[in-house]
Amino acid sequence: MYIPKTFKVTDIKEVMDFIEQNSFGTIVTTENGRPISTHIPLKLRKIEEFYYITGHVAYGNSQWKTIEDNEDILLMFQGPHAYVSSSWYEKENVPTWNYQAVHLYGKGYILDKDELVNELAIMINTYEKGRENPVSYEKLSNEVLEKQIKGIVGFKVMIKEIQASYKLSQNRSDIDYYNVVEKLKDEGTTNSDMVAEQMIKIKKSDG
Amino acid sequence: MYIPKTFKVTDIKEVMDFIEQNSFGTIVTTENGRPISTHIPLKLRKIEEFYYITGHVAYGNSQWKTIEDNEDILLMFQGPHAYVSSSWYEKENVPTWNYQAVHLYGKGYILDKDELVNELAIMINTYEKGRENPVSYEKLSNEVLEKQIKGIVGFKVMIKEIQASYKLSQNRSDIDYYNVVEKLKDEGTTNSDMVAEQMIKIKKSDG
Repeated sequence: MYIPKTFKVTDIKEVMDFIEQNSFGTIVTTENGRPISTHIPLKLRKIEEFYYITGHVAYGNSQWKTIEDNEDILLMFQGPHAYVSSSWYEKENVPTWNYQAVHLYGKGYILDKDELVNELAIMINTYEKGRENPVSYEKLSNEVLEKQIKGIVGFKVMIKEIQASYKLSQNRSDIDYYNVVEKLKDEGTTNSDMVAEQMIKIKKSDG
Repeated sequence: MYIPKTFKVTDIKEVMDFIEQNSFGTIVTTENGRPISTHIPLKLRKIEEFYYITGHVAYGNSQWKTIEDNEDILLMFQGPHAYVSSSWYEKENVPTWNYQAVHLYGKGYILDKDELVNELAIMINTYEKGRENPVSYEKLSNEVLEKQIKGIVGFKVMIKEIQASYKLSQNRSDIDYYNVVEKLKDEGTTNSDMVAEQMIKIKKSDG
């Protein structure tokens, strides 16, 4: 991903938090040169000194057949995004778009049955935590579990490269920056609100 | 994209509306077998009997160099998405994720200067329409415009294939379906609200 220096995020803790908060990602592989992709929840895990992304797709989704053949699997995570009108700046300029995105690249492996069962348990317990009447992996009947295991293919990707971009008007003057924040709040859409929040957050962490 | 029949959207008018409402998309190409991608606003246009997506990237973003070499450029558009707990169903099951996504494939071309100027004018006028003190392409100074034109590369992709998936619990019973809608509203997050809205909308258009 093209990331001008101003927008680059290098803090690994920040990137990990971002992935956790925006865990519904996209896996892109290629098949005979053609990019194919699936939108699924993904989980970032650190095992010894390596970072892995794990996930699973439907058995009917033939993308799983490409996972071990791809040297550079792309995993994408996106935060909120919003149109930024240049009418909100002091000086004449062209409009742009603010957004947050993390791209990871790595080598993929298909999970064996034990690993897949472990992956499912972690997924269910992650998303059910703190819910009313939570579904618990441990309490699922064998029948439901066996059916599920047969219907999916799990994978892990060992991360070789991290690209993280927060494009949030950091290249604008303070006057423009805070005016963009206010105008985004005025837009009254959920994405604009969330971008405004992120803009306030990064200024605070700046100092 | 793997799309079970239940989730497949074939109405071209619906797909075009979806792209217009979710125009901040992702362009994926490959470079030496490695998928690369950029998140940008994209515009769907029908010229004679063909559909095109147009957009532009920063000149510094070398992805533009891959555009004419790729036979199958992937363009992705995403709607809202939300976790669906299986505790919301009548019978025991595993959790899932609801989402809407459109993938387009096509052949790419770099725009010449006149086409790029036209693309910019359409983009600005699309997003500034109806705003207070709108930026108008026609009123931009030559200086700002020339600087902008030099800093970007425009492209168009002639669409060869459309894949549209609305994965919105259509495979559940009516009781489960409307319970998911209610529970998503209870979640109180913007994405869950939007998914619930989409679920209500597609049931209405069904019947």
